Amino acid sequence: MILPEPTIRRLPWYLSYVRMLDHLHVEYVSSTQISKELNVQSSQIAKDLSFLNIRGKTRIGYEVRSLVTELEDFLGFNQHHDAVVIGTGSLGTALMQDHGLEHYGLNIVAGFDVRDDVIGQHLGGIPVYAISDLADWQREHNVPIAILTVPVERAQATADLAIASGMTALWNFTPYRIKAPDNVVIANTSIYAHLAIIYNRMQGQSD
Amino acid sequence: MILPEPTIRRLPWYLSYVRMLDHLHVEYVSSTQISKELNVQSSQIAKDLSFLNIRGKTRIGYEVRSLVTELEDFLGFNQHHDAVVIGTGSLGTALMQDHGLEHYGLNIVAGFDVRDDVIGQHLGGIPVYAISDLADWQREHNVPIAILTVPVERAQATADLAIASGMTALWNFTPYRIKAPDNVVIANTSIYAHLAIIYNRMQGQSD
Repeated sequence: MILPEPTIRRLPWYLSYVRMLDHLHVEYVSSTQISKELNVQSSQIAKDLSFLNIRGKTRIGYEVRSLVTELEDFLGFNQHHDAVVIGTGSLGTALMQDHGLEHYGLNIVAGFDVRDDVIGQHLGGIPVYAISDLADWQREHNVPIAILTVPVERAQATADLAIASGMTALWNFTPYRIKAPDNVVIANTSIYAHLAIIYNRMQGQSD
Repeated sequence: MILPEPTIRRLPWYLSYVRMLDHLHVEYVSSTQISKELNVQSSQIAKDLSFLNIRGKTRIGYEVRSLVTELEDFLGFNQHHDAVVIGTGSLGTALMQDHGLEHYGLNIVAGFDVRDDVIGQHLGGIPVYAISDLADWQREHNVPIAILTVPVERAQATADLAIASGMTALWNFTPYRIKAPDNVVIANTSIYAHLAIIYNRMQGQSD
């Protein structure tokens, strides 16, 4: 089921909160409680959670353990999604070393770079290959997701290569707005745009 | 001037594109050209750029070099904004080592952690201190921005500490939705939410 993006953005908030409750052995949680904790209207929470295969009980709320599982299933965090990192600079390397991503279903199986000093090495236990070998490698491995952490001037060409190699989803960490056919999934994590938002809002503080 | 968030999100796209043109020694660019390249309507681009102190010339467009400078100034990327990283795990460390952020005006001056093996060390040339020293340290340094890369269960407590210490902007990389007073700026970079969006859209591909 294709959900609206704002809903998908809120579900991980609920998940991180109910995971915490679960660690604290809390058994039930109401949408009112989630609402107070996360500052989202409880009617919105009830609506968002209605997409899931779970129903709250009157006056008791949702069972925490079930809510964790249902959210993880629904968000795809319980499945393995293979991915490659293209561009193993500091951000790419961090993603390869961040085993936290595994808890969200992301399985990084290879890195690709142009730098001779890193090709043939391992980062976070994951092998790094030459970008020029990507198409051949992908024919054998058929990985769906490419994580783009290349310099901005390489963003579009790298995306084109990944798509031509058969990758169907691009997670773009560059500030470049990548063009791709409609059947390719693109998610932009615009770190620099968030910085611009911070600076702009800080300016408002001192006005 | 406090701009709407969608506008602030688009401006860095224009900047990364015109920076590339500038490197290629291109002198002028029209909103139509930017529109084709970035897949944003040219009327939208003209509207976004109208907030800046720059005017395009009829049939010639915007002067590339001026557009770069005006965008950088407007976005605050030409100024220094001091920041600390709280939580020097793999993501925190990557941000401290990523000198690319300096080109966007972010000046990370210290890291903070709870782990004895990292306190007193340097990461990317930047010193790491104990979180328990944050309040004292901040009294002396008065840094505005705290970058939160702590484990999710520490997110709110760490945010509370940063705010109590006088920090006025939080860049939150945890999946937790942090609560803060209205006068504190919060920007959420929800890496896991983006993963959820990718998974959900990929599901749509195979439907």
